[in-house]
Amino acid sequence: MANPILLPELRLMLEENDDLGLREVLTELHPATVADFTEGLTVEETWRVLSRAPLARQAEIFSYYPIPKQVAMVEGAGRERMSALLEEMAPDNRVDLLQHLDDEVVEELLPLVAKAERHDIRQLLSYPEQSAGALMTTEYASLPAEVTAGEAIARLRQQAPDSEMIYYIYVLDDQRHLLGFVSLRDLILAKPSTRVADLMTRDVISVRVDEDQEEVARKMARYDFIAMPVVDGENRLVGIITHDDVIDVVREEAIEDAHRIGGLAPLNTGYMQTPLLTMSSKRGVWLTILFFTALLTTFALKEYEDNFERWGWLVLFVPLVVATGGNSGNQSATLVITALTTGDITLRDWFRVIRRELLMGMVLGAGLGVLGMGIALLHAPTYWDAVVVPVTIMLVVTCGTLVGSILPIIFRRLGLDPALMSNPFVAGIVDIVGIVIYMNVALLLLSSGDG
Amino acid sequence: MANPILLPELRLMLEENDDLGLREVLTELHPATVADFTEGLTVEETWRVLSRAPLARQAEIFSYYPIPKQVAMVEGAGRERMSALLEEMAPDNRVDLLQHLDDEVVEELLPLVAKAERHDIRQLLSYPEQSAGALMTTEYASLPAEVTAGEAIARLRQQAPDSEMIYYIYVLDDQRHLLGFVSLRDLILAKPSTRVADLMTRDVISVRVDEDQEEVARKMARYDFIAMPVVDGENRLVGIITHDDVIDVVREEAIEDAHRIGGLAPLNTGYMQTPLLTMSSKRGVWLTILFFTALLTTFALKEYEDNFERWGWLVLFVPLVVATGGNSGNQSATLVITALTTGDITLRDWFRVIRRELLMGMVLGAGLGVLGMGIALLHAPTYWDAVVVPVTIMLVVTCGTLVGSILPIIFRRLGLDPALMSNPFVAGIVDIVGIVIYMNVALLLLSSGDG
Repeated sequence: MANPILLPELRLMLEENDDLGLREVLTELHPATVADFTEGLTVEETWRVLSRAPLARQAEIFSYYPIPKQVAMVEGAGRERMSALLEEMAPDNRVDLLQHLDDEVVEELLPLVAKAERHDIRQLLSYPEQSAGALMTTEYASLPAEVTAGEAIARLRQQAPDSEMIYYIYVLDDQRHLLGFVSLRDLILAKPSTRVADLMTRDVISVRVDEDQEEVARKMARYDFIAMPVVDGENRLVGIITHDDVIDVVREEAIEDAHRIGGLAPLNTGYMQTPLLTMSSKRGVWLTILFFTALLTTFALKEYEDNFERWGWLVLFVPLVVATGGNSGNQSATLVITALTTGDITLRDWFRVIRRELLMGMVLGAGLGVLGMGIALLHAPTYWDAVVVPVTIMLVVTCGTLVGSILPIIFRRLGLDPALMSNPFVAGIVDIVGIVIYMNVALLLLSSGDG
Repeated sequence: MANPILLPELRLMLEENDDLGLREVLTELHPATVADFTEGLTVEETWRVLSRAPLARQAEIFSYYPIPKQVAMVEGAGRERMSALLEEMAPDNRVDLLQHLDDEVVEELLPLVAKAERHDIRQLLSYPEQSAGALMTTEYASLPAEVTAGEAIARLRQQAPDSEMIYYIYVLDDQRHLLGFVSLRDLILAKPSTRVADLMTRDVISVRVDEDQEEVARKMARYDFIAMPVVDGENRLVGIITHDDVIDVVREEAIEDAHRIGGLAPLNTGYMQTPLLTMSSKRGVWLTILFFTALLTTFALKEYEDNFERWGWLVLFVPLVVATGGNSGNQSATLVITALTTGDITLRDWFRVIRRELLMGMVLGAGLGVLGMGIALLHAPTYWDAVVVPVTIMLVVTCGTLVGSILPIIFRRLGLDPALMSNPFVAGIVDIVGIVIYMNVALLLLSSGDG
């Protein structure tokens, strides 16, 4: 995303010590834009540019760099400078970065961070990755129920500088139990004398601190909130998750699903940022698993070697039969995996899904079988011999849709990610089944023909 | 997502004419929750339940039903009731629904809708699907630049009931040109006498009304806004897109990508909601295309029929070679497609991507080749003969990574969706190339061995 056009200009401004110009770039543009423009600078240059802005602004821009650049910047900064920046960063961005640093670096930096912030960091770092706790920020606006709307706005003015999000204000009792929330919109529209208790929504949709981020994203997408409160086991407010973090989660989860469907372990880092060794191991593991699955086809074919000696033309259709079964299996698996992820179908629907896929397999199989018959006539010695191909295709396609729909459902049932049952794996299983079906159909139809 | 537990209770309340109880359910819970609870009711029952709530609330709940239920509800409602509801619905939700109705139904309903709303509807309906214009709402808060923060808040109190989102206020001149924006947070924190012109951010990130929704989602994810302004060709504000609509777009686009990667035309409707005929045509089209691709393998094999007569054991490895090439191609295609969608790589990176994939193919191919050698020794007559398998696997895997990475890049270059170059299609091409490589390696190594 870096825009390289401005790099020479920026370097010139650095060289000429154009403090005023740099300060303008840093403060007038959106921090994400500044991050894009400066991404291509070296670590040392970036620090020199950033130092022209107030510390709070530096922290904002810094958070918009990709994590690998942030990590490199930490290595290139003094401990004092970095700990000051950490104090200014939003709690969720700060924890994102710290999770990607070596433990020794973190232990060197933390003692320099102010005590309150340090406590907050340790707390957030303790939540498991991909949980609501790891995603949330601890900067939110809260109020007791008994204040009036007018007082509430006055108090917000004091809380605002420390809160990422002041458009929803959470109403808490003395023990921080979540009683309800009011929107800033409601406060502005209400008479100043109205009590917050009478304005607030009591049916609060919240997430538990240990819930998975996928569940957080699902709720946020359903309820259209700007932020969602995160509570502990006793309904005490511990943080909030904001809309922008949820968009990132939805993207991440979608890419993870796509990677699993495509037959590789999710990278979790950008394509270009992934070191070649990590990349080859994440791909190699799955390729090897799939290789051993495909290996079974050699044994299956070995079983039926006689068939090929007697009816040599059967060889020609091996890849076609195998690919067609795999393709129909892929389609079913993709549909069922995405529908399970979005909540479009649930496990309770298993019977309807399988019935649907069975029917679909027969319809699609019949259509492709007709095409297959046409082709088989070109190569098979007799009309009767050719029938082996359409019959096999029909059976293999139906088998593909069944395997493709049942395996993800079984995986979800076992509590595993259905996308683990990646498409190539489905295809691998259908390949073997396809060969067994092909060879048996041939034996059945051709032997009787010979006899 | 429907929660069937409450259905009998709701029906009982209807039967007993428990107006008070129904009204409480309808107004105290989040409209999305009410929609979930009542989704399982019949159309007639749903209308009876809804009628207990004020019209504005009815419109909110109605918008949370899945589109097929909304369409069914329109059919079951009188024209008067439906046009009154349409007037109350948010402009973006209203247009979503109308796009899914038959044109005659729309033309019956529109004349009953108030003139201002009708004009707005016609305008929004005119934007192409999946464009920023089709996604936006026309209810936003705006101000002239010269008012003070205090006046601004007073004006907002008047605009708020008609605006979906009052947390960003757009600053316009007399011709509605977009000059900047100010957040409600800034207004609340500012001294009441400060001019909006001095508070506002002038570096506005906006989208053009004809931009693709994928681009909208990318900008929104990058800049973390709650809403983004939509402008026409002359930078005049025509609407805004809110964060919740963007989450939906990100999910939709991700599912579309997954469906294309999985080798079928995107459904755009839920799995269970898609009629069997639509489903079989969306799947059948791709299965047929892929079938004809796979068909080429029969002709490729026919070319080399002699090989199988001379060295029968070669047959055993056909599916293995073909599947391994396809799997490595799938991995590359998935990685490149997702990286292009997220903007993680751009077309300018093509050379680095291909170099990376070439290297990756050689590393992975060498690894799998070693495994292949082990297996080949079990079946091949001599050590020399067995070498055909590892050499083929190395070449085929490398070929797979190259085809898998180059095809999506070429598609993007041609202005087409790279995900169209679905994984099964990549696999299909690699299958044919794989057979040609296999047969030629065999001819080269085995003929010289014989000679």
